[in-house]
Amino acid sequence: MAMASCISKGKDYNYKILMEELVGKMISLPVKLWLTAIEVGREDPRRPIHALKVGVSLTLVSFLYLLEPLFVTVGQDAMWAVITVVVVLEFTAGATLCKGLNRGFGTLCAASLAFFIEIMSQNSGRVFHASFIGISVFLVGFLATYVRFVPYIKKNYDYGVVIFLLTFNLITVSSFRVHNVLHLTRDRLSTIAIGCGICLFMSLFILPNWSGEDLHNSTVQKLELLARSIEACVNKYFQDEDKEVIAREDKSSKDQIYMGYRAVLDSKSSDEALALFASWEPRHSRHCYSFPWQQYVKLGAVLRRFGCTAVALHGCLESEIKTPLSVRSLFRDPCSRVASEVCKVLDELARSIRSRRHCSPNMLSDHLHEALQDLNSAIKSQPRLFLGSKNARRTANALVDWRSDKNTSSTVALSSAKSDISSLLEGRGKRAPDTPKGLSERKSLRPTLSKIAITSLEFSEALPFAAFASLLVEMVARLELVIEEVEELSRAANFKFSQEDEAVIEMEYCEEKKPSATAKFFQSNVVSQTAE
Amino acid sequence: MAMASCISKGKDYNYKILMEELVGKMISLPVKLWLTAIEVGREDPRRPIHALKVGVSLTLVSFLYLLEPLFVTVGQDAMWAVITVVVVLEFTAGATLCKGLNRGFGTLCAASLAFFIEIMSQNSGRVFHASFIGISVFLVGFLATYVRFVPYIKKNYDYGVVIFLLTFNLITVSSFRVHNVLHLTRDRLSTIAIGCGICLFMSLFILPNWSGEDLHNSTVQKLELLARSIEACVNKYFQDEDKEVIAREDKSSKDQIYMGYRAVLDSKSSDEALALFASWEPRHSRHCYSFPWQQYVKLGAVLRRFGCTAVALHGCLESEIKTPLSVRSLFRDPCSRVASEVCKVLDELARSIRSRRHCSPNMLSDHLHEALQDLNSAIKSQPRLFLGSKNARRTANALVDWRSDKNTSSTVALSSAKSDISSLLEGRGKRAPDTPKGLSERKSLRPTLSKIAITSLEFSEALPFAAFASLLVEMVARLELVIEEVEELSRAANFKFSQEDEAVIEMEYCEEKKPSATAKFFQSNVVSQTAE
Repeated sequence: MAMASCISKGKDYNYKILMEELVGKMISLPVKLWLTAIEVGREDPRRPIHALKVGVSLTLVSFLYLLEPLFVTVGQDAMWAVITVVVVLEFTAGATLCKGLNRGFGTLCAASLAFFIEIMSQNSGRVFHASFIGISVFLVGFLATYVRFVPYIKKNYDYGVVIFLLTFNLITVSSFRVHNVLHLTRDRLSTIAIGCGICLFMSLFILPNWSGEDLHNSTVQKLELLARSIEACVNKYFQDEDKEVIAREDKSSKDQIYMGYRAVLDSKSSDEALALFASWEPRHSRHCYSFPWQQYVKLGAVLRRFGCTAVALHGCLESEIKTPLSVRSLFRDPCSRVASEVCKVLDELARSIRSRRHCSPNMLSDHLHEALQDLNSAIKSQPRLFLGSKNARRTANALVDWRSDKNTSSTVALSSAKSDISSLLEGRGKRAPDTPKGLSERKSLRPTLSKIAITSLEFSEALPFAAFASLLVEMVARLELVIEEVEELSRAANFKFSQEDEAVIEMEYCEEKKPSATAKFFQSNVVSQTAE
Repeated sequence: MAMASCISKGKDYNYKILMEELVGKMISLPVKLWLTAIEVGREDPRRPIHALKVGVSLTLVSFLYLLEPLFVTVGQDAMWAVITVVVVLEFTAGATLCKGLNRGFGTLCAASLAFFIEIMSQNSGRVFHASFIGISVFLVGFLATYVRFVPYIKKNYDYGVVIFLLTFNLITVSSFRVHNVLHLTRDRLSTIAIGCGICLFMSLFILPNWSGEDLHNSTVQKLELLARSIEACVNKYFQDEDKEVIAREDKSSKDQIYMGYRAVLDSKSSDEALALFASWEPRHSRHCYSFPWQQYVKLGAVLRRFGCTAVALHGCLESEIKTPLSVRSLFRDPCSRVASEVCKVLDELARSIRSRRHCSPNMLSDHLHEALQDLNSAIKSQPRLFLGSKNARRTANALVDWRSDKNTSSTVALSSAKSDISSLLEGRGKRAPDTPKGLSERKSLRPTLSKIAITSLEFSEALPFAAFASLLVEMVARLELVIEEVEELSRAANFKFSQEDEAVIEMEYCEEKKPSATAKFFQSNVVSQTAE
């Protein structure tokens, strides 16, 4: 009996625990929900505002039913206004416009076609009428669904076709029972117009969210994320000494690296959707007729490819194929400087896009080149790690004849690199914005820059580091493409010039006739090089 | 007058040209449309079939209006069946199920809530009733819209919430005018059920398209595309000799490279959508309760990161930072062999996934290792390009102490690499599928393999080539991750074993007790190495 009471006590105890757990969960659930709700709102404060807008719109549209005078006017068809508001009112103005106009146009087309079919089969017998409707429903259903597979339609007008199909079916089919189709169509159209009107008013005039702004901001953010990612990546590569510090910082820096390039790599579909919606928005047309949203998509594609270099750089860390610490620490400063210059350029590009002004690529490229040059000299200043000039001469036959002698070569290579860059930048400053000649010149000049940087890295033993360094240089080459695309964007979108830029352009215009000092320097170098 | 007639003749001529152009366009437009239609159908023959299915479903649902006995039963509410068919019937069975069940569940919830509110405000005055409805419409609209921003809801139940909001509003608002809400709700639910039934029947039983199949096939295709991309990339890198051939082949090979990795990099959103829809499909549950569709998404993520290496490899071609031809041609065969082995592994993985059987990683890794070893020996056999052993010894202090002597080190490194791989594969064969210990062992072993391959590439001058080669080795290391993920998939999805595999597993089970020949070899090597 003692045992039985013990068991029952145990049971009671179990029940108590279970009950406590259940109560605990019941209490924690609302807390959890509340925290999630706050988190969602904090991430983007426009969300609760949008939710409020939807609530208000629905209440407004429900007045069509609730208020006697309105109900008398629109009657049962008020339902269509409710459906329209629920389905059309989207987060951004562009998306609402896109859906609203698609819906309106789809409905109009469908109503016309349905009306045409109704007229065609008006004076026929009951059975013929029914089979005629059946056949036309089948045919239109087949064709409309098939048309939705065409990529162009799918991308731009998918929703419109769905609404066309929906409205056509509803009108055609109900025309068999209702005799005044014109009346039916007119009522339905007017209520849909009321719904669309409320949606457009709410999304265009009451605290509007613009898809274009989102696309603009996300592009800026992507540039900044990439900068942070590369920064963290290079820092981590050269930071192996303090094992304890790493253990603490490892996770956060890894997250930062990963988050950075992942956000860029995964941005394709959201970019395209935003650009599509933005193209419906009536904004930014002050400067140009159609704002070049597709240019943002293109920039996104270039950034994705740039991001791939960041992934490869991260691969150098992750795969643990590392250069000995001693070698790495020798090059920490110059490498970090190249990386920080890359980051600076990315940040500067982000800033220029954010403030919608032209970036100044001259300044950017100059610093970048100086950093590359530093890396170059750092490598040259560590003779222990490279071949002597004797050895170099022995293997020179197997190589291209970029340089004839080790000692002269370094100065020639550097000065020609310098003048290459100068001419590159001059060409950029001078050329008219859209001359294809200027573009092709730059295309042929860019590789030269990278080539010089790469061939001057003459390690013998620090090979894994060579891969890291060449990825860094590759990154600089890719960065040029990013700069080019940002320039293209700022030209296409008529970004404003800063005052300094305007001064520079004016100066360059004045000096265009006489050859510049750097060009002279370049020419003399070429002469001395060929003389040798 | 002659001039006037001349002018009028000229005008006539212009009109004639214009008319001809117009007629030409009028004739070419249908031809163009027809060609587009044929192209769309040829790309995926399931598309016209799906369009036919939609046409048939719509015709079926229109019978609710057209046939007298059916119309008498369901009446005006037949409209809801039409709306349901248009909106719910999707291309794949999973998408239809997802939408249909979301719609059904959303409607049920909304109807219950609306009914509850109706009961609450039943016996109140007219004005109170109206304001009660208005407030509840506002609150539910606000909350439902806000809930849609929660990522989990957005991903899985977005459509359900929209339908909930729609139905709730329609029922609540119309309850103000219609007094028998229960009747109204029941009729509406029954017609929606008819619509959903037709959709589910059409998509599940008449020539169904499975999202799961699509995901499966697209994964296979991605592996194959990557293989072709890498193949084309490496071929192009070593193909500079015949300039004429390049000019002809350049565009097509570039397209192939680009198409390959681009398809992989851009696959995220479609993969996730397919996996989501596939998770609703009632298929493949013969083997396991829930088919691991998320594993395909994970594999896709690993493939995207693998694809980034392909992009970086392509970067070596595109940036024109190239090694001199003489150096490149020396290593064409071993590099091509590594690349072709990588491609073979990718193709083998694709084949094994396609036929839903376990892949045999042993065989794959062995060949891959042989190819890496070949590259290694090729590099060692070109002393002209590397430091002599004297030089190596001089710089050895700055390097890690992986090897003590040049001559012995190569054999030790190779044999230990060999035994590393053997033990890696043994460990893989032996270990239970889910032991975390086995996983961690492999994680620590993989870098060793790559480390050895990298450090044996001791060039002095062929640095740009070093970057190319190290990317190739990096690719092999990443490939291991892909193989791992495919194995994980085949385990999770209960893929069948081929007969050879079963024999191998049995043998390994028998030999598990006694140490293998390679293990003995490895042990003796370690002993000799430490003795030195």
